[in-house]
Amino acid sequence: MSNNDQESNKQKLWGGRFTGETDPLMNLYNASLPYDKIMYHVDLEGTKVYTAGLEKIGLLTKQELAKIHQGLEQIDAEWANGTFVINQATDEDIHTANERRLGEIIGRNIAGKVHTGRSRNDQVATDMRLYCRDILTKKLIPFLRNFINVIISRAREEINILMPGYTHLQRAQPIRWSHWLSSYATYFTEDYLRLTQVLERLNKSPLGAGALAGHPYGIDREFLSKNLGFAEPIGNSLTAVSDRDFVIEIMFWSSLFMNHISRFSEDLIIYSTAEFGFISLSDAYSTGSSLMPQKKNPDSLELLRGKSGRVFGEMCGFMMSMKSIPSTYNKDMQEDKEPLFDCMTTVEHSILIATGVISTLKVNKEKMEASLTMDMLATDLADYLVRKGVPFRETHHISGECVASAEKLGLSGIDKLSLDQFKGIDARFNEDVFNVFNFEQSVERRDAIGGTARSAVLKQLGNLENKLQ
Amino acid sequence: MSNNDQESNKQKLWGGRFTGETDPLMNLYNASLPYDKIMYHVDLEGTKVYTAGLEKIGLLTKQELAKIHQGLEQIDAEWANGTFVINQATDEDIHTANERRLGEIIGRNIAGKVHTGRSRNDQVATDMRLYCRDILTKKLIPFLRNFINVIISRAREEINILMPGYTHLQRAQPIRWSHWLSSYATYFTEDYLRLTQVLERLNKSPLGAGALAGHPYGIDREFLSKNLGFAEPIGNSLTAVSDRDFVIEIMFWSSLFMNHISRFSEDLIIYSTAEFGFISLSDAYSTGSSLMPQKKNPDSLELLRGKSGRVFGEMCGFMMSMKSIPSTYNKDMQEDKEPLFDCMTTVEHSILIATGVISTLKVNKEKMEASLTMDMLATDLADYLVRKGVPFRETHHISGECVASAEKLGLSGIDKLSLDQFKGIDARFNEDVFNVFNFEQSVERRDAIGGTARSAVLKQLGNLENKLQ
Amino acid sequence: MSNNDQESNKQKLWGGRFTGETDPLMNLYNASLPYDKIMYHVDLEGTKVYTAGLEKIGLLTKQELAKIHQGLEQIDAEWANGTFVINQATDEDIHTANERRLGEIIGRNIAGKVHTGRSRNDQVATDMRLYCRDILTKKLIPFLRNFINVIISRAREEINILMPGYTHLQRAQPIRWSHWLSSYATYFTEDYLRLTQVLERLNKSPLGAGALAGHPYGIDREFLSKNLGFAEPIGNSLTAVSDRDFVIEIMFWSSLFMNHISRFSEDLIIYSTAEFGFISLSDAYSTGSSLMPQKKNPDSLELLRGKSGRVFGEMCGFMMSMKSIPSTYNKDMQEDKEPLFDCMTTVEHSILIATGVISTLKVNKEKMEASLTMDMLATDLADYLVRKGVPFRETHHISGECVASAEKLGLSGIDKLSLDQFKGIDARFNEDVFNVFNFEQSVERRDAIGGTARSAVLKQLGNLENKLQ
Amino acid sequence: MSNNDQESNKQKLWGGRFTGETDPLMNLYNASLPYDKIMYHVDLEGTKVYTAGLEKIGLLTKQELAKIHQGLEQIDAEWANGTFVINQATDEDIHTANERRLGEIIGRNIAGKVHTGRSRNDQVATDMRLYCRDILTKKLIPFLRNFINVIISRAREEINILMPGYTHLQRAQPIRWSHWLSSYATYFTEDYLRLTQVLERLNKSPLGAGALAGHPYGIDREFLSKNLGFAEPIGNSLTAVSDRDFVIEIMFWSSLFMNHISRFSEDLIIYSTAEFGFISLSDAYSTGSSLMPQKKNPDSLELLRGKSGRVFGEMCGFMMSMKSIPSTYNKDMQEDKEPLFDCMTTVEHSILIATGVISTLKVNKEKMEASLTMDMLATDLADYLVRKGVPFRETHHISGECVASAEKLGLSGIDKLSLDQFKGIDARFNEDVFNVFNFEQSVERRDAIGGTARSAVLKQLGNLENKLQ
Repeated sequence: MSNNDQESNKQKLWGGRFTGETDPLMNLYNASLPYDKIMYHVDLEGTKVYTAGLEKIGLLTKQELAKIHQGLEQIDAEWANGTFVINQATDEDIHTANERRLGEIIGRNIAGKVHTGRSRNDQVATDMRLYCRDILTKKLIPFLRNFINVIISRAREEINILMPGYTHLQRAQPIRWSHWLSSYATYFTEDYLRLTQVLERLNKSPLGAGALAGHPYGIDREFLSKNLGFAEPIGNSLTAVSDRDFVIEIMFWSSLFMNHISRFSEDLIIYSTAEFGFISLSDAYSTGSSLMPQKKNPDSLELLRGKSGRVFGEMCGFMMSMKSIPSTYNKDMQEDKEPLFDCMTTVEHSILIATGVISTLKVNKEKMEASLTMDMLATDLADYLVRKGVPFRETHHISGECVASAEKLGLSGIDKLSLDQFKGIDARFNEDVFNVFNFEQSVERRDAIGGTARSAVLKQLGNLENKLQ
Repeated sequence: MSNNDQESNKQKLWGGRFTGETDPLMNLYNASLPYDKIMYHVDLEGTKVYTAGLEKIGLLTKQELAKIHQGLEQIDAEWANGTFVINQATDEDIHTANERRLGEIIGRNIAGKVHTGRSRNDQVATDMRLYCRDILTKKLIPFLRNFINVIISRAREEINILMPGYTHLQRAQPIRWSHWLSSYATYFTEDYLRLTQVLERLNKSPLGAGALAGHPYGIDREFLSKNLGFAEPIGNSLTAVSDRDFVIEIMFWSSLFMNHISRFSEDLIIYSTAEFGFISLSDAYSTGSSLMPQKKNPDSLELLRGKSGRVFGEMCGFMMSMKSIPSTYNKDMQEDKEPLFDCMTTVEHSILIATGVISTLKVNKEKMEASLTMDMLATDLADYLVRKGVPFRETHHISGECVASAEKLGLSGIDKLSLDQFKGIDARFNEDVFNVFNFEQSVERRDAIGGTARSAVLKQLGNLENKLQ
Repeated sequence: MSNNDQESNKQKLWGGRFTGETDPLMNLYNASLPYDKIMYHVDLEGTKVYTAGLEKIGLLTKQELAKIHQGLEQIDAEWANGTFVINQATDEDIHTANERRLGEIIGRNIAGKVHTGRSRNDQVATDMRLYCRDILTKKLIPFLRNFINVIISRAREEINILMPGYTHLQRAQPIRWSHWLSSYATYFTEDYLRLTQVLERLNKSPLGAGALAGHPYGIDREFLSKNLGFAEPIGNSLTAVSDRDFVIEIMFWSSLFMNHISRFSEDLIIYSTAEFGFISLSDAYSTGSSLMPQKKNPDSLELLRGKSGRVFGEMCGFMMSMKSIPSTYNKDMQEDKEPLFDCMTTVEHSILIATGVISTLKVNKEKMEASLTMDMLATDLADYLVRKGVPFRETHHISGECVASAEKLGLSGIDKLSLDQFKGIDARFNEDVFNVFNFEQSVERRDAIGGTARSAVLKQLGNLENKLQ
Repeated sequence: MSNNDQESNKQKLWGGRFTGETDPLMNLYNASLPYDKIMYHVDLEGTKVYTAGLEKIGLLTKQELAKIHQGLEQIDAEWANGTFVINQATDEDIHTANERRLGEIIGRNIAGKVHTGRSRNDQVATDMRLYCRDILTKKLIPFLRNFINVIISRAREEINILMPGYTHLQRAQPIRWSHWLSSYATYFTEDYLRLTQVLERLNKSPLGAGALAGHPYGIDREFLSKNLGFAEPIGNSLTAVSDRDFVIEIMFWSSLFMNHISRFSEDLIIYSTAEFGFISLSDAYSTGSSLMPQKKNPDSLELLRGKSGRVFGEMCGFMMSMKSIPSTYNKDMQEDKEPLFDCMTTVEHSILIATGVISTLKVNKEKMEASLTMDMLATDLADYLVRKGVPFRETHHISGECVASAEKLGLSGIDKLSLDQFKGIDARFNEDVFNVFNFEQSVERRDAIGGTARSAVLKQLGNLENKLQ
């Protein structure tokens, strides 16, 4: 018991739960091993390269280095096998656990040198960047590319299907179902490109920054960086240990991606209602009701939509944690790991589920096309007059009158107006006005870049594929 | 395999990972048992009362009810003993797990009646409210009361210690250390009162609302409510199953409480710097550095400050999840549990840690009082003149001149100006001006309600104690 | 020019835009008059009461007080008339503007005494609480009550209309349209009750707390509090000047209310699609398209839904601003006003718009009732068997078989199965099974508290009215 | 009055405030002109290029085009002069205002053609991208570059000043003040690079996408894109009109930048306390207290820190607004403009204020260096032993013993231990141990990349300058 503590025991106690030398809850509150052990492998990799750096500047002998690397590989195997035994009393995080075990395997004398000039501050920052790089390159990026490719394949296959396009959730103009698919593929491709930039920015090495002020033995940070596959060392040691922008950027990326997913899910949930009836989910991605045997609920899509909140909350929370904390490392920053790991897992699973949903849903072509109504061609009717030289604002007005007139006459649509009735509204209408009332042609007229015509949609899909290379 | 699925297998596949009848990842994505099993006990309690309600309206016999209750108690014991065996294939949540097990124990014939007229929608809403009520009444509320009482005891004990009061983190006026303590006790007491209102609002019964439309067998919802200790049944069945305001309110309460904790921690972190030196944390709540042997870091306070982000993020995330989802139950709402449970645990631990910190820290009275400087009495100097009838705005100006004059003359403080020098600045200064320069008296002059005078602080503490009854 | 500044001018400049004595942008960055002048009246009221308090302790004569009050009333009139002239150079906030003007009217000698013992810290906190109280009591609370009453009236009037109730946006069970209305009235009534608690909590007086340490002349804070209509003085002066919980609580209240509004709007937007067709908005609350003459967009509801983000963002932002700032007043807290004022205005307008929408929309009874389908009675079919003593889990299965059987036979609904076919599925079916297939009776069976039966809905509405008293 | 409205008037009214044909509040709730008129110039530019595109495909004659362009230029001049007269009744947004005015100037016949094939959806998306591009390229990017250059200049100039480096706000190791400056310059340079990527991503053209489905007259979208200085047309028309990712990205960028600013401000606020005393702000960026004449408050830094909340809130709010809204344009998206414009202005001003602060603050070299204490060299003492071959973990322990021993002996620092006392702790200590106790040398030893040695800091500064090219 330290002097300090003896004194504090002599002091009057303030009625608190706890006044002794240690507080077991504090250990729990402080410990990160339960969640940071997931980084065991990159922690060992980082140590391998770091000790190689120490050998390079003469702080380890070749023999010591070999022993250390052997020990590290054994630990790696123990984690992989599930034979690593955690010491609950001392292993507060993955770094101490691995170092403790190394001492047991190769002796504390050599193991005690491993940490020379390194601090937990640069070590943890290095581990996290390595770990995130792994998840991004092995999971998020390829899974996302695959998801987009699935959407593109489906869009090519079902290019013939027409459906109503909506603004304000009101039927607006006919579009191709593939145009809708291509729209989301466009969003997700932007997400894809954005994620590669996040990856580039995080791929920098904090290793060798020490606790804050730099490395006191002149370690070769370029060597460390290169051997860990990083692009370059982070330029300032204070920043190196306290920069968690890569965490925030991954969380923001995820929030924006999931925001897109929430809109994608919303559309599909609405399209799968009895009232719309445009699609039906495969059984694998929907469930029944415990009380209502007839129901088939789009649980997968609702979970996707709901989890857009989860990752957004993780970003908000961690940005709050980082707000206005003083320079360099503060323990507040330990709040980075749990939300980050959960965020990356949530996104990984969400991509896979969304891929499954879109791969297996069935499109009800008949229902989609039956929802196309003649009033959706009112713009085309206006366009018809524009082609005859009538100013657009005027055509807009005339077309509106036709819609109102058909309604007043109790007709089923504007196509049911007689030529005389058309001419009664505006003399510039002609026999050829009836050509307007064709959904396929309406769609095909929109063949400028980005439009819903077959050729335009196919071109879009090709462009997206090029961007994914 | 359903017709549906055979068809979908015949269909061209879209290159997706998965097209079969089930997707194991979907089960994982969907399952809540890993985190909702924490509610096992209240789920069983809810079923006990619900089945009593069924017996009351003749849908169960007394014998059936007895058997069911016996079975439920056995399950409760199994969970408590750790002998409950989860069926990974079918137990997707705690409700199905308990019901499945009940069938095994008492036979499916009787167990199959338990769910009559109840849906998972009202069941889960009931369980969550019961669970939250437990945590609030057994943990958060008493722990918070104890925390406040510890602060109050400390404030009474150390009422003699003076320290600088700050605005803009600049020294402003002398205050009592106990006044600072009382300020946070005031915030936390408001939190306490607010939490009791949250508790009242959540303590309402959704049970008997059915899936959405109400109960088809006329169950006595007052009976259910009363027997579960709720204040009243929720008035509308659609709302009963889809209202998660109690979740959001707990999260908001936590965020605001932790916002206070973040300011409390910030103050103490600054006060424990070498430069301020006002307090030192006990060893139990601080840690050393792996690289710098001399350091003692206030980890506990930094974690407290950092975790204010975590709970805030949980609130933000769940509010996003709930935003604009359609009426009644949607699966998005399953995103309520993990953040809520984590939020309540985080707050529980944070209260205990903060209690430990404040119970055990040592105050450095000498350092606090040495930081009081004469310029902090400039307002008192102005007050002196006000008492002589000088308009305040003028006294403010005169007092500022005294400060400037002392600085120009190289004096250590305004108290070192001679009477002549004072009179040179303003003729209304008199011999008695030197009585102003006394920190204790400055503090004691502020004896109006809420002030820093001894009597005023003691009165505050008494008032707070009254509010905690 | 101060010594300080002369020195700083001698120093080498760092290439910055600005190094002189003042930075005009800093004035802009710092000034709050453009938005805090909205509080002019309560600022004057606060000063009236404060000076009455000064007279009570002898720091002002009766004559001085009379002159001051006269001056304050003149200023009030000037603001009301629009004749108050702002001095751009000196009036950085409403408090200085009013005090400057008072000096011009009644002379600086007396006006200079007004601020005696008061600081801007307690003054601004007082003004804000008074202002918020005004907005809540004169606008938000009565407007909200009226909104709920409109919903209730409509619900009473249209009690006969049936519609599909949804879970997961899938048709689940028939409900009354009034039951849907009552559900939102229930949410909004909880909001109403919650808001009255927010009002109670904010209605406390910071006045007389001084800058931070308390009042040095023993002002009677009870007197100040009472005369401003506050319930009590805030107990601790440090807290009094730095507590912005009332701001955060109003913002949170608004966010939760608007979250409900977002769900309400979402439902109505979906119900007003061509596919659902349940309602149509009045022209006053919808707009046409610039390109598509046939469209009628529910802009009002979309804005309501969108603005749920706006107020949520204001809460998030201000909670971030307050996170971990040190004790008592810091300038960061000036970030409270703009978002708070915008938040209250947004909510005020949103309540009025929502009231207008719900007052004027037309319900398409035929479309609603045409959307009721026989499979929505599958639960009722199960209930039928339960009443015959079959365990619920079994009935659930049997009912599912009936649905599947009707589908396989190509029937339009389960009601089209013959008695033989029913008996073929389960022998316990009888002639009376056909009584199940009646939507009105299905609804009426749900007559337990909170259910969708006529009597239950009417009772709900009455209860809500009682809560609004 | 339309049929619809007559009917609705005949209907029973629901007690609502409003049931007529228009609701003046709805106009206010809906109108965007008060804030979107700021985009008047880019709106006119967009129309210029769009009409050139119409001429290219024969929908306008050369003469019509010339007249239109003349008219647009006149409108531009009117806005610039302040002579543009808004028509309160009809000008709901900047697009209708400009189009209405064009009709007045050149006649409705020609003006009515301007909108041919364009919708407000692609128009507003185009305007916003043009406007943001302007603000980024003309303000945020150059102002940020200048800010960083000011920091770098100051860092070069004051390279000799040492100060304590902190972790956990506890003194850790000596660093150069310029190293601290360089750390923030490193953060801000990353922000700079990130912002150029945001700029690239937003610089794409939605023009010609129509309302949603594409352009019906085959306009040359490449031409439009090129002539507006965009990199390329957005590939899918549905996405083109509904993608607000560029808004969210600017808001996120701002939030992360301001998060850095909040840490920068926090450090400087702490450094400007009386207790630290490291810096003092120029009078231009600080203010006095209304009650305490002696105070000098760092208002500028507190506002900078507080405003980090404001922009974060704007991001959160708008992400909430966008969450799960259905495909293509919805009116919810109008909530983009106010927060975006405020966000960009807030950041612009914040950069300028921060530049002013850092340009003009005075560093108190003596106070900084006086805060360096011998215990901050404990790591260097450990390093000394490492160089003698002692394993680091052991040296750490020995160094800790020296600190404890000096404390126990009442010495002012570890440098006051005698050689015998050192040797008593560990025999490997030698005469040369006393060379360790030199702050300058401690700093200079950290000369690896990113370290605090003079050469390393200067290299960092050079690298940053290269990145800003």
